[in-house]
Amino acid sequence: MTAPSIDAERLLGRLRALGQIGRDREGRLVRLAGSDADKAARDALVAWIRDAGLEVRIDRIGNVFGIWKNGANAAEAPVLVGSHIDTVIDAGLYDGCYGVLAGLEVVETLKGSGFRPARPIAVAAFTNEEGVRYAPDMMGSLVHAGGLPIETALATVGTDGTVLGAELARIGYAGGEEPGFLRPHAYVELHIEQGPVLEREGVPIGAVETLQGISWQRVTIEGEANHAGTTPMSMRRDAGHAAARVVTVLRDRARNANTPTVATVGCMSFEPNAINVIPSRATFTVDLRDPDEGRLQAAEAALAADLTALAAEEEVTIAVERLARFAPVTFDPAIVALVEEAARGRGLASKRMTSGAGHDAQMIARIAPAAMIFVPSVGGISHNPREHTPDADLVAGATVLLDVVSRLAAR
Amino acid sequence: MTAPSIDAERLLGRLRALGQIGRDREGRLVRLAGSDADKAARDALVAWIRDAGLEVRIDRIGNVFGIWKNGANAAEAPVLVGSHIDTVIDAGLYDGCYGVLAGLEVVETLKGSGFRPARPIAVAAFTNEEGVRYAPDMMGSLVHAGGLPIETALATVGTDGTVLGAELARIGYAGGEEPGFLRPHAYVELHIEQGPVLEREGVPIGAVETLQGISWQRVTIEGEANHAGTTPMSMRRDAGHAAARVVTVLRDRARNANTPTVATVGCMSFEPNAINVIPSRATFTVDLRDPDEGRLQAAEAALAADLTALAAEEEVTIAVERLARFAPVTFDPAIVALVEEAARGRGLASKRMTSGAGHDAQMIARIAPAAMIFVPSVGGISHNPREHTPDADLVAGATVLLDVVSRLAAR
Repeated sequence: MTAPSIDAERLLGRLRALGQIGRDREGRLVRLAGSDADKAARDALVAWIRDAGLEVRIDRIGNVFGIWKNGANAAEAPVLVGSHIDTVIDAGLYDGCYGVLAGLEVVETLKGSGFRPARPIAVAAFTNEEGVRYAPDMMGSLVHAGGLPIETALATVGTDGTVLGAELARIGYAGGEEPGFLRPHAYVELHIEQGPVLEREGVPIGAVETLQGISWQRVTIEGEANHAGTTPMSMRRDAGHAAARVVTVLRDRARNANTPTVATVGCMSFEPNAINVIPSRATFTVDLRDPDEGRLQAAEAALAADLTALAAEEEVTIAVERLARFAPVTFDPAIVALVEEAARGRGLASKRMTSGAGHDAQMIARIAPAAMIFVPSVGGISHNPREHTPDADLVAGATVLLDVVSRLAAR
Repeated sequence: MTAPSIDAERLLGRLRALGQIGRDREGRLVRLAGSDADKAARDALVAWIRDAGLEVRIDRIGNVFGIWKNGANAAEAPVLVGSHIDTVIDAGLYDGCYGVLAGLEVVETLKGSGFRPARPIAVAAFTNEEGVRYAPDMMGSLVHAGGLPIETALATVGTDGTVLGAELARIGYAGGEEPGFLRPHAYVELHIEQGPVLEREGVPIGAVETLQGISWQRVTIEGEANHAGTTPMSMRRDAGHAAARVVTVLRDRARNANTPTVATVGCMSFEPNAINVIPSRATFTVDLRDPDEGRLQAAEAALAADLTALAAEEEVTIAVERLARFAPVTFDPAIVALVEEAARGRGLASKRMTSGAGHDAQMIARIAPAAMIFVPSVGGISHNPREHTPDADLVAGATVLLDVVSRLAAR
């Protein structure tokens, strides 16, 4: 049989349609987990899944599955594709949604092509990947993989004081399946890169073989508030200055080292935050990432040593709180090789790479062979309305996913 | 006649009583200009002024004057003493209040002692010295000195959206006198040092001969928001890191220079302030002070050069807004000498010094010979409930003020 082709117009049309759901008054795309906007997007997705003739199943954490199976293959573990449809605040069109809708497109294409899979093929939209309203992020896939008890997840209190379980019930997506009910034979997630590498190198397909480990910490430095005009420089215990030293040291070390370690201070606050008062307290976050666990631990240890030295030098007290820690993930080499092979088969260049961002695939990799496919992000921009991937790249990525899934489901 | 003595118990009792007015639910002392707490404190002060037999006059910006005059001296320019009774948030007992209540104590003592002044003696409580709710600070004395039009001052919108003029009317302190109606022969302000020098050197009296110049700027750095996990260190335009560099450079230069220049970054904010997003914007304040105008200008020029270099190196855009600028003030040498002489006369050591903080005296110095007297601040702490000056030092300062005022009013 000749290789089937996805319906590019159907895929791109659904991406645009989904991107219209959840616009706020200023026109920003905001679809936080469990919100009315999330419900509207889920309703649209479920309607498309039903139109495609797939079975809809929803689990207790609200993960949505569309399953294509028949009497002959129903007993086999399914090939699972997917991602998420919740968004950050003021999001772009592609993050997550592309993986879900391309997954559905692939199943629909295979179903329509007369393909006879040896096992079911399913598409998943995992709940609360972004973690904006409820922490942690990647929650739905984490629960699915058994990494977080369902009761704990449902009891999560959001930034707005709501409880996730109550919100899922309210919007009609507190499903009946036990999390993990669907144990995949393999998982493949197609996603925009959210970084600049593929565009810069002119390569349309990323075969993602690792996913960076992530270390999130909150650092609180306590000094002494004092009058900005009357306290000589030599007598200050300036928490704000101590925090600034950490920011510069972290950046200099990450920038000068010949490693892929990235270090970011994204949140910062001073107290009392008055123009004429030396800060008594500075609180900031540190985000460290590296695809190698040893290097990630080295970066954490270097920061800890910095803080110890700083506390003595600046006569400040420093407390560190661990907010999140995920070890690097190594994806399944056979699936990664399949991605490369599929790209080659379609005449597309590919590049083995690391994912800098966290994805549902890192959770599902705990329970099944998994890998990811990346397509270029223009300017490396994501979590932003300017997030963009050219249509041709979107179609190329979905086509590679099609070929990978048909190979995985053939046996 | 023998030298009169102030009534220490009366002064200390009023200081404690005033410090109970304006406690919030957590017990913090908060008496912002124009608030209900400010009204309650003004009412108490006015009652004490009337009890002392002085004439109460209130001007349009709410400055309160208690005037002691008689038929023989009413045509002469008065000797003015005073300070302010508004406070910062979570204040101590002494900042401002000490100068006002010691001033009243001095007038009451002289009045009761049979002293016959050649000119009126007045005590002032200037509106909104702290500038917490309405900017700029030292507003009442600035208006009194003709440095800010009364209509502009009354139209000031506060941090809580209120308008100062309306708030003064609401609390009953929109007075009828035109600002500046009282043009002093001389002005003396007694104040806690708010710095560590007098305590460290064991000297009870500071004869303040200069007041530092103050330069306040707000710096806004614009970089580019991007994903903390996927953006290589070399491709970042990190506004937060650029701001941290400014903080460290400012501190290092001020600390290493052999000058009294002080530099403080008290306010800092990042946007979007998300743990996994490289900051697109950092906004912070810079407070530079020096008793010498040339050195203050040099510090400003060095910062401007830093920012220009930083904008190029870090590929960020930097905007600077001037928030306040006061040139250094040189107080009246004759009054400073009188302070030293009065201290000597009471057997107290004194030290010529610079005020690191801004005070109403710097405004009144525009229209009259002026000087300040400092007493020690334990630990140099102020703008803080731990602000403290031992009773003996408070009494010593008021006694020196008594002798200085009686000399100034004798001629």
